[in-house]
Amino acid sequence: MLRVGYPATLAAELFSRFPREVELIALSDKLDRDVEIDVWIPDPYPTRALRTWPHLRGVQLVLALMAGTEWIPATVGPHVTICNARGAHNISTAEWTLAAILAMLKYHPLYHDIQRAGVWKRRFEATAYYTRITGDARPLAPPVMLEELTGKNVLLVGYGAIGKEIERMLSPFNVNMVRIARRARTEPLVHPVSELDNLLPHAEVVVLILPATAETSQLIGPRQFALMSQGTLLVNSARGPIVDTNALVDALHTGRIRAALDVTDPEPLPEGHPLWSCPNLLLTPHVAGSSPQFAPRAVKVAADELRRYIAGEPLKNAVQIAI
Amino acid sequence: MLRVGYPATLAAELFSRFPREVELIALSDKLDRDVEIDVWIPDPYPTRALRTWPHLRGVQLVLALMAGTEWIPATVGPHVTICNARGAHNISTAEWTLAAILAMLKYHPLYHDIQRAGVWKRRFEATAYYTRITGDARPLAPPVMLEELTGKNVLLVGYGAIGKEIERMLSPFNVNMVRIARRARTEPLVHPVSELDNLLPHAEVVVLILPATAETSQLIGPRQFALMSQGTLLVNSARGPIVDTNALVDALHTGRIRAALDVTDPEPLPEGHPLWSCPNLLLTPHVAGSSPQFAPRAVKVAADELRRYIAGEPLKNAVQIAI
Repeated sequence: MLRVGYPATLAAELFSRFPREVELIALSDKLDRDVEIDVWIPDPYPTRALRTWPHLRGVQLVLALMAGTEWIPATVGPHVTICNARGAHNISTAEWTLAAILAMLKYHPLYHDIQRAGVWKRRFEATAYYTRITGDARPLAPPVMLEELTGKNVLLVGYGAIGKEIERMLSPFNVNMVRIARRARTEPLVHPVSELDNLLPHAEVVVLILPATAETSQLIGPRQFALMSQGTLLVNSARGPIVDTNALVDALHTGRIRAALDVTDPEPLPEGHPLWSCPNLLLTPHVAGSSPQFAPRAVKVAADELRRYIAGEPLKNAVQIAI
Repeated sequence: MLRVGYPATLAAELFSRFPREVELIALSDKLDRDVEIDVWIPDPYPTRALRTWPHLRGVQLVLALMAGTEWIPATVGPHVTICNARGAHNISTAEWTLAAILAMLKYHPLYHDIQRAGVWKRRFEATAYYTRITGDARPLAPPVMLEELTGKNVLLVGYGAIGKEIERMLSPFNVNMVRIARRARTEPLVHPVSELDNLLPHAEVVVLILPATAETSQLIGPRQFALMSQGTLLVNSARGPIVDTNALVDALHTGRIRAALDVTDPEPLPEGHPLWSCPNLLLTPHVAGSSPQFAPRAVKVAADELRRYIAGEPLKNAVQIAI
């Protein structure tokens, strides 16, 4: 009987739909003895999962509950197959991205401060902000107090499952969508990442939603920030190391660009880090994928993959096949 | 030749597409003499327009640049035809509404405070907030740090042009949409406003987007707040007097509901008003319709209506026909 270890931090009833022919073993994140299992479902929090790993014996298959699995191969080595929970985070992460884009274009951080100050007339500060951030210096009457997403030039960097979900949620806004991914494709047209520098100057919103790899590390650096137009909004709902943090801090302080980040480098962002206090920035502490619907969705993806594994069918979400 | 008075606060080139057979007259908002015109385009700010009105003679037609024209009939009397700029605000107001819904479900006000404090670990406060506001007291693992819009029960109160635009922008989120308007309709199903109290308990998001009339005044009062479920999000992008402000302040302070408002009663909201400091509230100072695209769009709507008026064709956007 296949032994499946799952994190004791998750409610056991989540696994009630697992195949009946497996033995489910709840793993404490404070294991003090070795445990023999065949399949490991790591805790969604890597720090807890890393505490568990040294006590596991016999693991052949890892079924991760997250989309991002970058910490797992180096931990478990090449002789273990790793599957991610492809799809479980799509909706929540895409929704966070839409919320972040709209909040920045509607000047929510500014209005939050005005609400706290409790002074209605301060709304005219928004017109000065519009002029400053967009570089649109025409006399404005009536005053412009926020922007529209509709019709904006959006550069979507990354076109996996979450990228496609973001595109779907953007569809009512009739944006001019330009797509970039590691591999060029057609129908729809997807440019190769080598085109990034040529495409950046035309973008008004740049969305990063690609995996963290050696290739994508520091993809957005000083040269890329210099290529962006005045007021460009950079949104990172992928992984922190894709952006050069020092270059981002510099670009934000010049007032040339604005940003919305759910991820940072380093992470967690330490107290006192200059990013916390940058202007024109919306920052959330890596929460975009969180959702009350996440755990049931991710566990269902894992259960379906486990069923294929038991039946000897091809796996759908393998990110590493054991050698 | 038809004389058209327009506010001098607007750039003259906006009117370059007006019919050639009219004489355009720029009206200062500090007029100190009477002016004879046939058609009046009031300043988008009622306070400025009201200063101009006493100096106008001969006005037969008012072409408002706003969707809301509730102050105009009492000002100009029944012998003047009034048209609004139907459509010019649809996109910006619907976008504000989407932004407000997503910002509240993604706990942006809370994360804004965490960003200001610069403490990554404070993100776990979001889980406590989720439990408190939704009333979902199950043990949560992994912790839930924001909600999803996808699948929520949305009650759309008002189904005019902006209401339909909001529905269109909500379409990627597969919400369970229930519509209410003054008149019941089918295809799609629209319930009469008399059904409001029956439908409120099932709603997770209530969007108010109907005109301010005697009938809609105080539509949402103590009884309606009492009918709402724990955590209901009330969004008002219509007009302040549709909501009973005292009842709203009370409901927010109990922690039972949350709200996002672009409009208030009274307006402007005076300094020190209790609404400014209510919990679970996103408040912007009547800016939702603002947009860099607004002036060209509204002037085009007015130009098209003026062309119909000159040609003797039926008007499209009349809200009052002269008696």
